[in-house]
Amino acid sequence: MTPARRLLILTEGHLGVHAAKTAIGVIRYGVDPVVAVLDSTNAGRNVAEWLPGHDIPIVASVAAALVLGPRPTTLLIGIAPTGGKLPAAWRRTILDAIAAGLDVHSGLHTFIGDDPEFAAAARAAGVQIVDFRRPPDRLETAVGRPHGPGKRVILTVGTDCAIGKMTIGLELRNAALAAGDSATLVPTGQTGMMIEGWGVSVDRVIADFLQGTVEWLVEEGEARGEWVIVEGQGSLDHPAYSSVTLGLIHGATPHAMIMVHKPGLLEHDFVHRPDVSFPIARLPSFIRLHEAIAGVVAPSRVVAVALNTSRIGDDTDARRAIEAAAAETGLPADDPVRFGGARLWDEVRQAVDALPWVAGSASVAETA
Amino acid sequence: MTPARRLLILTEGHLGVHAAKTAIGVIRYGVDPVVAVLDSTNAGRNVAEWLPGHDIPIVASVAAALVLGPRPTTLLIGIAPTGGKLPAAWRRTILDAIAAGLDVHSGLHTFIGDDPEFAAAARAAGVQIVDFRRPPDRLETAVGRPHGPGKRVILTVGTDCAIGKMTIGLELRNAALAAGDSATLVPTGQTGMMIEGWGVSVDRVIADFLQGTVEWLVEEGEARGEWVIVEGQGSLDHPAYSSVTLGLIHGATPHAMIMVHKPGLLEHDFVHRPDVSFPIARLPSFIRLHEAIAGVVAPSRVVAVALNTSRIGDDTDARRAIEAAAAETGLPADDPVRFGGARLWDEVRQAVDALPWVAGSASVAETA
Repeated sequence: MTPARRLLILTEGHLGVHAAKTAIGVIRYGVDPVVAVLDSTNAGRNVAEWLPGHDIPIVASVAAALVLGPRPTTLLIGIAPTGGKLPAAWRRTILDAIAAGLDVHSGLHTFIGDDPEFAAAARAAGVQIVDFRRPPDRLETAVGRPHGPGKRVILTVGTDCAIGKMTIGLELRNAALAAGDSATLVPTGQTGMMIEGWGVSVDRVIADFLQGTVEWLVEEGEARGEWVIVEGQGSLDHPAYSSVTLGLIHGATPHAMIMVHKPGLLEHDFVHRPDVSFPIARLPSFIRLHEAIAGVVAPSRVVAVALNTSRIGDDTDARRAIEAAAAETGLPADDPVRFGGARLWDEVRQAVDALPWVAGSASVAETA
Repeated sequence: MTPARRLLILTEGHLGVHAAKTAIGVIRYGVDPVVAVLDSTNAGRNVAEWLPGHDIPIVASVAAALVLGPRPTTLLIGIAPTGGKLPAAWRRTILDAIAAGLDVHSGLHTFIGDDPEFAAAARAAGVQIVDFRRPPDRLETAVGRPHGPGKRVILTVGTDCAIGKMTIGLELRNAALAAGDSATLVPTGQTGMMIEGWGVSVDRVIADFLQGTVEWLVEEGEARGEWVIVEGQGSLDHPAYSSVTLGLIHGATPHAMIMVHKPGLLEHDFVHRPDVSFPIARLPSFIRLHEAIAGVVAPSRVVAVALNTSRIGDDTDARRAIEAAAAETGLPADDPVRFGGARLWDEVRQAVDALPWVAGSASVAETA
């Protein structure tokens, strides 16, 4: 794990927007204190307006963050824009942070550390630049590694990008730990890595080695716990990212999958083609498609639906949406963020242990 | 296209083996004369023993290739080993070739040009090193580009790696040209690139940009012909490469697919797990799976089965296998390498033009 950091999180103009999902994830699930959020368009307000319970001031500049009290140690770039590139306007802010002695932690595709100006400034200031998306040197294709004895591997999948596959993984891992189970989350994206302190941003890996990298990450996860929950990416029907999703399914060969879905979201947020609708899938057929495509490499089953009910204001309506999803799919369903993860984790654990291809299950134990 | 080359093709110890598919492809379909094949384990024999009609001597060293007659201009590395790495034993041969004034063309994952010793030797000798797998600088996710008016896009898919998806693409493209159609092949692997002189080795692209790269390649293909045949990669059920296959399906959004299948091949050649069988799929359900997974982004149909009957010695038996595949799938089937591509191309062209989502088809014209 990273040594204690105090974070200044850059979200410039994106707070509360889809692209700020890194900031939101780190604020909600990270272990490091957040001194301030840097967003000149919302300066003077407080993060609690967007995330109740998180009392964090919003400032307009690096200078303003330095005088709040305990000095931040790290500027964390808290957005994940499409394609992962660095907005040109943020260069000044990053240089200010470096000059003030802050490390820079980034999950962008554009590596901050490879930029000659940033690299020179960091050397001069004696600070570190960490690019979480930098892929490992390891270039290996998948070898069909079997899961370790007694290990259970679960992958979160979903009906869209950025609807909570990492969050559901974190909530269920935390619920598992609270229930006394040995459990770990395998981070596969930059936000999960920033929260957990390890992992690989698998979308940055060379395509030929994607499944091999995921397979290796699962092996690492199995060394950390009995229940291995793999953070999913993208969705199997996304025009741009579905191949990364399939790389996770066939690389992790999960015993089971959890389908994450956001009621009320009707279309993929696919900005390039406003003229064409890429509708969000219907759950039953989409679940069958996941099981079919997983099954051509290793058997797997969707054992639960995790709903992101953030678009539904009222708890009663949210519970109604959960009941509807359970009825539609015949699977346990819940919103672990809204109602806690204990109940869903209990259902998931029982369902996984009953699968015929899980070693030690009540049914026939077969892996191939 | 590359200016005239005379090739010396390195296959050391792999001639006639699966891994020499680059050599075989370039010998059969390339436009450049092949002076010799370098394979010390078969020196003194002739390529015609493996590929009838291709009278090419096999030599044991670069020096032996230089005295045959017209001097080779280029050493082409003719293998595609798992993971694409350079066998250590080949370093000497490559250095000999550079010292003799030959360019080096490679499709390996390990870039020859990035190796300090090779790079220095090439500079000293004034020769060029071309790494066909080097990805383009373009880092763009897919944007959901629609196909151009009147364009028809066809992707070759298959029941395994290395069974002829590129070859079928070349044969059908050639049959289309012979029939007077405007047709082009989109090369997506290093062998296709070496033959056609353009393209991208898509398995080398960063995973997040795979679909965006394929989409862009199809756009380039549409500028070159009305019928755009995209070379497929891997197979949708391969434990290591299925995500690249799906990136091609969702990146190309082909109007139609052609399923390549090799009768008699029972299992994926997956050397890492001799204890586990990864059987070759049955055609009907595998075809349905392709149409289902393609259809969640854009409608597509498998319109023909192209058989690789190279495991069947007798023509009558080969025709019987073709009839069986046609009966099993209800689709036109043939082996274009063995029996010519004219008939299958004619069937494919008619089937594609009848698809309801092909602009100008007899049925409803809808693209979304």
